[in-house]
Amino acid sequence: MAYKEADVTDKIYELGKRRGFFWPSYEIYGGVAGFYDLGPYGVMLKNNIVAKWKRRFIYEHQDLIVEIETPVIGPEKVFVASGHVESFTDPIVECLKCKRMFRADQLLEEAVGVKAEGLPPKEIEEIIREKGVRCPVCGGELGEVRLFNLLFKTQIGPYTGSTGYLRPETAQGMFLAFKRVFQAMREKLPIGIAQVGRVARNEISPRQGMIRMREFTIMEFEFFFDPENPECDRLDSIYDEKIRVLPASEKARGEEKPIEVRVGEAVEEGIISTSWMAYWMWVSRKFLEDLGVPSTKQFFEEKLPEERAHYSRQTFDQLVETSRWGWIEVSGHAYRGDYDLSRHMEYSGEDLRVFKKYEKPVIQKKLEVKLNKALLGRMLREKMKDVENALMKMDLSALKDEIERKGYVEVCGIKVPKECVSIVEKEVKLTGRRFIPHVVEPSFGCERLVYITLEYAYRVKGDRVILSIPRDLAPVKVAVLPLLSKGEMVDKARAIYRDLMKAGFTVMFDSSGSIGRRYARADELGIPASVTIDYRTLEDNTVTIRDRDSWKQVRVPVSDLEKVLRDFINGKSLEELGEPVQG
Amino acid sequence: MAYKEADVTDKIYELGKRRGFFWPSYEIYGGVAGFYDLGPYGVMLKNNIVAKWKRRFIYEHQDLIVEIETPVIGPEKVFVASGHVESFTDPIVECLKCKRMFRADQLLEEAVGVKAEGLPPKEIEEIIREKGVRCPVCGGELGEVRLFNLLFKTQIGPYTGSTGYLRPETAQGMFLAFKRVFQAMREKLPIGIAQVGRVARNEISPRQGMIRMREFTIMEFEFFFDPENPECDRLDSIYDEKIRVLPASEKARGEEKPIEVRVGEAVEEGIISTSWMAYWMWVSRKFLEDLGVPSTKQFFEEKLPEERAHYSRQTFDQLVETSRWGWIEVSGHAYRGDYDLSRHMEYSGEDLRVFKKYEKPVIQKKLEVKLNKALLGRMLREKMKDVENALMKMDLSALKDEIERKGYVEVCGIKVPKECVSIVEKEVKLTGRRFIPHVVEPSFGCERLVYITLEYAYRVKGDRVILSIPRDLAPVKVAVLPLLSKGEMVDKARAIYRDLMKAGFTVMFDSSGSIGRRYARADELGIPASVTIDYRTLEDNTVTIRDRDSWKQVRVPVSDLEKVLRDFINGKSLEELGEPVQG
Repeated sequence: MAYKEADVTDKIYELGKRRGFFWPSYEIYGGVAGFYDLGPYGVMLKNNIVAKWKRRFIYEHQDLIVEIETPVIGPEKVFVASGHVESFTDPIVECLKCKRMFRADQLLEEAVGVKAEGLPPKEIEEIIREKGVRCPVCGGELGEVRLFNLLFKTQIGPYTGSTGYLRPETAQGMFLAFKRVFQAMREKLPIGIAQVGRVARNEISPRQGMIRMREFTIMEFEFFFDPENPECDRLDSIYDEKIRVLPASEKARGEEKPIEVRVGEAVEEGIISTSWMAYWMWVSRKFLEDLGVPSTKQFFEEKLPEERAHYSRQTFDQLVETSRWGWIEVSGHAYRGDYDLSRHMEYSGEDLRVFKKYEKPVIQKKLEVKLNKALLGRMLREKMKDVENALMKMDLSALKDEIERKGYVEVCGIKVPKECVSIVEKEVKLTGRRFIPHVVEPSFGCERLVYITLEYAYRVKGDRVILSIPRDLAPVKVAVLPLLSKGEMVDKARAIYRDLMKAGFTVMFDSSGSIGRRYARADELGIPASVTIDYRTLEDNTVTIRDRDSWKQVRVPVSDLEKVLRDFINGKSLEELGEPVQG
Repeated sequence: MAYKEADVTDKIYELGKRRGFFWPSYEIYGGVAGFYDLGPYGVMLKNNIVAKWKRRFIYEHQDLIVEIETPVIGPEKVFVASGHVESFTDPIVECLKCKRMFRADQLLEEAVGVKAEGLPPKEIEEIIREKGVRCPVCGGELGEVRLFNLLFKTQIGPYTGSTGYLRPETAQGMFLAFKRVFQAMREKLPIGIAQVGRVARNEISPRQGMIRMREFTIMEFEFFFDPENPECDRLDSIYDEKIRVLPASEKARGEEKPIEVRVGEAVEEGIISTSWMAYWMWVSRKFLEDLGVPSTKQFFEEKLPEERAHYSRQTFDQLVETSRWGWIEVSGHAYRGDYDLSRHMEYSGEDLRVFKKYEKPVIQKKLEVKLNKALLGRMLREKMKDVENALMKMDLSALKDEIERKGYVEVCGIKVPKECVSIVEKEVKLTGRRFIPHVVEPSFGCERLVYITLEYAYRVKGDRVILSIPRDLAPVKVAVLPLLSKGEMVDKARAIYRDLMKAGFTVMFDSSGSIGRRYARADELGIPASVTIDYRTLEDNTVTIRDRDSWKQVRVPVSDLEKVLRDFINGKSLEELGEPVQG
């Protein structure tokens, strides 16, 4: 499956550079692996993808999800608490001869086909020795396998010792801000806190271009809910929708193909452990469809326990099929439980629990020890404190039994008579409970979605390349093309160009070369509509609109142009919108 | 002027925390100076400000400006070439007793009122000694003044020695990508390359909250133009518009107040050294007005040579008056000349010049030396090479003159007769010229604009706080309020709420507390329109809309609601849009 049609990837990278979608950063200095620039069309596409993500996850869930923004740089203690200083590592091995560094588990897999993800360094090293694996570049002997921490490290301010790290995910920002956001949003649960922002991961030797970058944009949210009331209130509306899932249990038995299940069933059968996670997985599937990836080209793979991040109770990766790299992850769905808030409570000393008021106060019966201290003091003197402490620690209902049965209780080797100790029942009024919310987290890497959108949009028609990017995501929406490159037609075209810009369209004006060549350029940039100003325009103020995908054309009055283009971008077919032009 | 009404700032910071606009990052760990989180409403406001900036600078100039995105982390050589490793420094001084670090020039200014920005460390240290300045915290003696580099340092990948830095501006990304972008955009000049992205500056002791952050978002563009054709083609359209400027010459004479000049004149009189810079300064003025800052509360201050960054030939800071910090910079306008491209050419060895084709090839006459080498060799033997080299370096027209006048030319003490040397005129056909474009750069800090927008929006009416954020920038556009918190009115309100969300509005639903209290909450969040569902709604399907600023109300049919709200957000007054409600 992998490496099929690998040249599509090459073609997209070539197109990316030439037409201005993306290219390796720092090219003029020889490049640095794992960094990419987005060019003018790449940024527009990315911005549109981010806008679509926000629409699907935030704006269509305004009652549930809010967005925040927190820094990339954070102090060390945050990442100690989050577990990243200890656990955000990959195994690394150095060639003793050429001094090149390799990710040890990948090296093993590529050299001898042994899956080593998640294995301890010592075990990986043993397999390397056993199998006689050597440096893939120079053939030299490999050294010790050790763990390399993927956090970029820095120093904050002028004091030595004030270590900081660049965040590898935006999530910690949401956990640290949880209390403030929860209060500002008037203490409602569930609540999702989203962030779109830069993260950095100091990959050992990134080689998959836009798929594995050292710095990239994450779009993710932490969805906080009450673990005693975990039901998604909108699961019913999608109960019968289908998703494709490969459960860990199946995977462990060697299964590689997903099963198709109804979302509701996946929850009921325990395949997906919480209903909110299932709901967001379904939205994620729809979101990938928005980008042009059909449902048959995506599924959710559950991670095995040893493959999961340190904070996760259950994880699904949403996979999409690519031509060069096979099935790759576009989003991760982790059930983080109360891991992060608990850790930050522990490390900061701050109470991050929420308080949930009961509808009516709950009366709870509670036992209490009452001591006759005067009597006890006279009996025990200096031993009184020890006995008191011991009594306080005892199970009160057992204590009550014992006293009632024996008439005394034995504590610290002393028989304390019932005159000194009594157990009374008291009523306590509880107005609510305090608890740590649980969290599910859907998390998308943005730049790889730019690549994937381009791969799924890439079409060849004769000798032409067409980027059939979904119309509403296309960087430039309209090309304005005067048939002739001089005179009245150009003036008219410029006027239309300006009006469309003012109306909020992204527009390209192109008057150079034959009209066919200009259509070809527009197709290659994925511009959905080309508006041509011709002789007839000067007579009756109509223009033609050409559809990038079908190459069909219709003629419409200039006065309708804005509305027609808007409808077209929003999905209407061109035939509905104007008078067909005979080709 | 400064410190007047300082409590407004405190009130905004308090409101920021309580209602969810912004707060110090890492609070639960005691905070780290120079980092702020944006909460739900802060992000919405920021996003709207960014969108407005993009509209003003990019979309309204689609024919001129494109956006790109480049990494925050870069390899060392980039920042050596850019000059930041050498020059991006502030003077620092340590208290020898308590070991606290201070920015030395600020310390001097605060302790004894001496302006020391841009002075060399040794001079600052001398003034400290002279004036007997001591640690402002513990009174201890101060140590040596040295330079502290403000770049955050890190390491890229697993190799020691592969130093990286976090960018302090996005600009270098644009210079490095210039050639790619120029080619993808079909080699047109002028061209602006914009970027909105994170930058980091390791400030020594940041203390001005959202105004001076260690990590923040920059919105800037590098505008590349031909220095031989530097005229802005749209200056005429704003020739008579006025801007307020304080030129460096005036400032050097102690003047603190700006003068008002016509934009065109400012260019003609040389106050602003290039016309494109003037044009973008004018757009910047309009942009600040969009944020609610009137033209009387802003002006452009030219930096003195010693205050300018190392790359700049002329710099203006756009200043806005604030209640606590006096006049502060919201944007910088630097004429960077060819500094950056030249440096990157030098350090990378890559030719970053552009080629501009002449309309017609230009025939240039050129002199060439022709030597009779056989004759010369016989005459000079081993000295021939020296003579030849010397001849090549001479000014050819002077050489021609000398030979014609004397019949020989004296080189290296040797008289070379005209038989050996002749100067001939040749025609060379030039199809164009190669040159390094010049650059002007308008650069805005985003988070301080969030603060400034809030400060200019802050109003008090009786005991109420109103955030009169310009309607189109307001985070939440509409509050939907059922008069009663139960029954049919709530159902109706929920339906309206959902419809408005679907129509693309940001909406808040609020049913708790008295209607007056809910209006107050909406005012404090800066929600421009409150829609109330009351008894009459259930009868005739009309609702009231209340204007945040005037507190006036009109009644409109639910069927018109979407359109009315859109018009209202876009600036129409409420009175034009519905039937007035008698208060």
